[in-house]
Amino acid sequence: MNGAESLVATLINNGVEVCFTNPGTSEMHMVAAIGQVEGMRSILGLFEGVCTGAADGYGRMAGKPACTLLHLGPGLSNGSANLHNAKKANSPVLNLIGDHATYHKKYDAPLTSDIIGLAQPVSHWVRTTETAANLPKDAVDAVVETNTGAGRIATMIVPADCAWNDSSEPLAMQAAPAPGLVGEAAVGQAVELLKNGKATMLLVGNMALTERSLELANKISQATGARIFCDTFFKRMPRGEGRCQIERLAYFAEQGVEQIKDMEQLIMVGTKPPVAFFAYPGKASEFYAPNSALHTLAGVDQNAEDALSRLVAALGADHLEPIKTKLNKSPKGTGELNPRTVAMSFAHYLPTQAIVIDESATAGGGCYPSSAESEPHDWLTLTGGSIGFGLPTALGAAVACPDRKVVCIQGDGGAMYTIQSLWTMARENLDVCVIIFANRKYQILQIELARVGAQSMTKKTLDMLDIGNPDLNFVQLSEGMGVKATRVTSIEDFNSVYASAMTTSGPQLIEVVLP
Amino acid sequence: MNGAESLVATLINNGVEVCFTNPGTSEMHMVAAIGQVEGMRSILGLFEGVCTGAADGYGRMAGKPACTLLHLGPGLSNGSANLHNAKKANSPVLNLIGDHATYHKKYDAPLTSDIIGLAQPVSHWVRTTETAANLPKDAVDAVVETNTGAGRIATMIVPADCAWNDSSEPLAMQAAPAPGLVGEAAVGQAVELLKNGKATMLLVGNMALTERSLELANKISQATGARIFCDTFFKRMPRGEGRCQIERLAYFAEQGVEQIKDMEQLIMVGTKPPVAFFAYPGKASEFYAPNSALHTLAGVDQNAEDALSRLVAALGADHLEPIKTKLNKSPKGTGELNPRTVAMSFAHYLPTQAIVIDESATAGGGCYPSSAESEPHDWLTLTGGSIGFGLPTALGAAVACPDRKVVCIQGDGGAMYTIQSLWTMARENLDVCVIIFANRKYQILQIELARVGAQSMTKKTLDMLDIGNPDLNFVQLSEGMGVKATRVTSIEDFNSVYASAMTTSGPQLIEVVLP
Repeated sequence: MNGAESLVATLINNGVEVCFTNPGTSEMHMVAAIGQVEGMRSILGLFEGVCTGAADGYGRMAGKPACTLLHLGPGLSNGSANLHNAKKANSPVLNLIGDHATYHKKYDAPLTSDIIGLAQPVSHWVRTTETAANLPKDAVDAVVETNTGAGRIATMIVPADCAWNDSSEPLAMQAAPAPGLVGEAAVGQAVELLKNGKATMLLVGNMALTERSLELANKISQATGARIFCDTFFKRMPRGEGRCQIERLAYFAEQGVEQIKDMEQLIMVGTKPPVAFFAYPGKASEFYAPNSALHTLAGVDQNAEDALSRLVAALGADHLEPIKTKLNKSPKGTGELNPRTVAMSFAHYLPTQAIVIDESATAGGGCYPSSAESEPHDWLTLTGGSIGFGLPTALGAAVACPDRKVVCIQGDGGAMYTIQSLWTMARENLDVCVIIFANRKYQILQIELARVGAQSMTKKTLDMLDIGNPDLNFVQLSEGMGVKATRVTSIEDFNSVYASAMTTSGPQLIEVVLP
Repeated sequence: MNGAESLVATLINNGVEVCFTNPGTSEMHMVAAIGQVEGMRSILGLFEGVCTGAADGYGRMAGKPACTLLHLGPGLSNGSANLHNAKKANSPVLNLIGDHATYHKKYDAPLTSDIIGLAQPVSHWVRTTETAANLPKDAVDAVVETNTGAGRIATMIVPADCAWNDSSEPLAMQAAPAPGLVGEAAVGQAVELLKNGKATMLLVGNMALTERSLELANKISQATGARIFCDTFFKRMPRGEGRCQIERLAYFAEQGVEQIKDMEQLIMVGTKPPVAFFAYPGKASEFYAPNSALHTLAGVDQNAEDALSRLVAALGADHLEPIKTKLNKSPKGTGELNPRTVAMSFAHYLPTQAIVIDESATAGGGCYPSSAESEPHDWLTLTGGSIGFGLPTALGAAVACPDRKVVCIQGDGGAMYTIQSLWTMARENLDVCVIIFANRKYQILQIELARVGAQSMTKKTLDMLDIGNPDLNFVQLSEGMGVKATRVTSIEDFNSVYASAMTTSGPQLIEVVLP
């Protein structure tokens, strides 16, 4: 058994069932090893950012890692932006990066690069395998790392000769350590804060954003009057009928500051204190007032659900019934086709157990509030701010959850970064509906231009933020990659095409041309 | 004058005339500064790999840097694969990477990352600007770095507050140091080797691949019998009528070894000893025999043309007339449409002073030999092995040389990595003809699979190397981004469409569907 075969068998033993790949010569023995076995599905992407984004979506929905298989340093680089997003989401992702044979590196052949250097900024854990015999152990360590805490990015660099040389036997399943429990003092301090009469908010993320965690937070809110918030961008949130609603922090700094300006105390549960996405001249970076009390009940990697449960008990709030959302669908949009009416229809037809991937930026901003009382669904957002996340993450979520409809609400600018995702959706016949909000500009940047105090509004400046001229034709782009597509210019057409998409299976794209 | 304005004015003073950009909020003051002035053209890419590849193509043809303007760590990551290629080409490229304001970094906002860590593997020089006042000096140092030696990648990280705060005055032009001259001993040793009667080859690259360097090498060959080779992949080569021909090392290791197996002595001029692109089980990494004598006449960053000139003089070969290529065009292809007939027609119609960008991989491999005696032209290749180089480099070359026809011969697999380039070609109305060799597979990998000794030829394995199912439609993809396109399935149609493209201006794409 060569190293690649033992590696793949070990990964399968450890629950890794899917490989998103764009391989090259240095990965060929791993390609062959995956090709010989039943237990790992291989899914080809035409660009590595598709693979890593897909692994993020898969990890968020499956709660365990897929692996990526990428070609040396440049293959990793092409996937790095979506690894950055996945790292900020604390998604479990395992990267396998092929490298030159150990003895070949010294020659500085064209594809030689500092892979470790490229991997570290987008990984929690990086290891270069030294011998074929080490591969099974390295693989187990990597999988354990991905499943540690809230989830992590592990990157294994596999020299080609380690893959092709004789190796040791595959290793069995090894469980990751359970997320750490928070100490009694942290719970006790939260109790004190919640009982001292001051205005208090809980900011919840990661393991505090499960359905059960939200119910616990709801009880705390009922018992103490605390407000419950999530970050602007989060890994995954259960929403809609039967789930407990919370508030969401705004994107723009001044709005976020305004939202929580009365909060004297912030308790973080599974996340960090809230700050602005960008700095702006003369504005504060923190959303919270300088004299606010900050308390972390549970860090990102701690068992936030357990912490909330103990906090509920300490507050004597166990007996409370969480207030759950009742189904109250938005009416469908009528009249003009615009972001508001599309958001209404989006929410109206959203089917039960849908997975919503949100990279809709400005034009789709109405979809989140409009669907608060829709059928139960999960909502995934762009945690790292690097656009090009939507399409591949939708792809990966659909692989993880083949029985659920994935709806990707996607700005046109972001869509173009990883547009190759459509081809893989077609090839794998994934149940994804992509809604492109085509406003033909980087609208968020046109807003930001004024907000940062840059005074130039020359045509030359605005052209750098404008993706019209020529207008993109997403129907042709989509059909060119095998995904059926429709362009809509009226709300009636949108309703008809989208309603149909929600009741049929398979990939399709709707280009919504906004006025 | 704020930092961004002083930075841009300094860059213009130092000859930087073009900015390939995909900006975000943290770059907004630089966008505004570029928008306010005349001296720098701004060209938008829909993906950062387009921008960096374009800067590579521009740098190779203009002999000076364009700048890129990219959005924090992930924007750099998206451009890193083509920076890797540019670094291996020793192209002059200046990257401007926006970062959070200096005081905002500590908050670990979503887009925060280790930009220096990401930049170092793909740069020769990295600097983070510390204050607005430093920006002009940092800019001068960066441009000087790009123009040093054979050409370098300089990456400047610009925190947003350095861009928006008041700065110092712009700085004037500062010349880069001239490339170092080689010592007398290096020339003397080359003379000895060339006169000792042993079989000798010169391997020439970078500054030894200019039209004049090739003439000098030709004289050396005439005087001594030495063979003149270039690497498999090189930055830029003048070819065709009136230029001196040289041999080119093969891609596959065993072929390269066979080519030079009789060479007892290798003299490197502007490049390094030749090695295999990849390692293969049981095969040597070096192309040359273990007992070969290796001598470096000129290193990559040294003045190779001067070294060759002095070598010619020392050999008493000044009086020799270099043997130049006579025009002897390939006949156009007839009969079946296949790589051979397409290569014949490619060479037949290639116009004078064309710039050929070659990422044609297996299917276009015949184009290089077929055009050896075509009209004079320049040939640019994929120096770093990371596919996705062709389309953006063609774009950048067309910006650098608006009066020359750019022909991009491009494999279908590689085309998909940076397909967004087509949109920028349309927007800027660049004179680029893209020929897509559509064989619907990563054919090189299917060949490599067997060569590395991976035995699995299961359908699952081959599917990972196959980009059919569904077939890509490059006509739809191209027209979806505004570039007119034609699919051809006969050599007559190819000849007609391609001949027409060579005599008209503006971007267009020809999809050659191979049997």
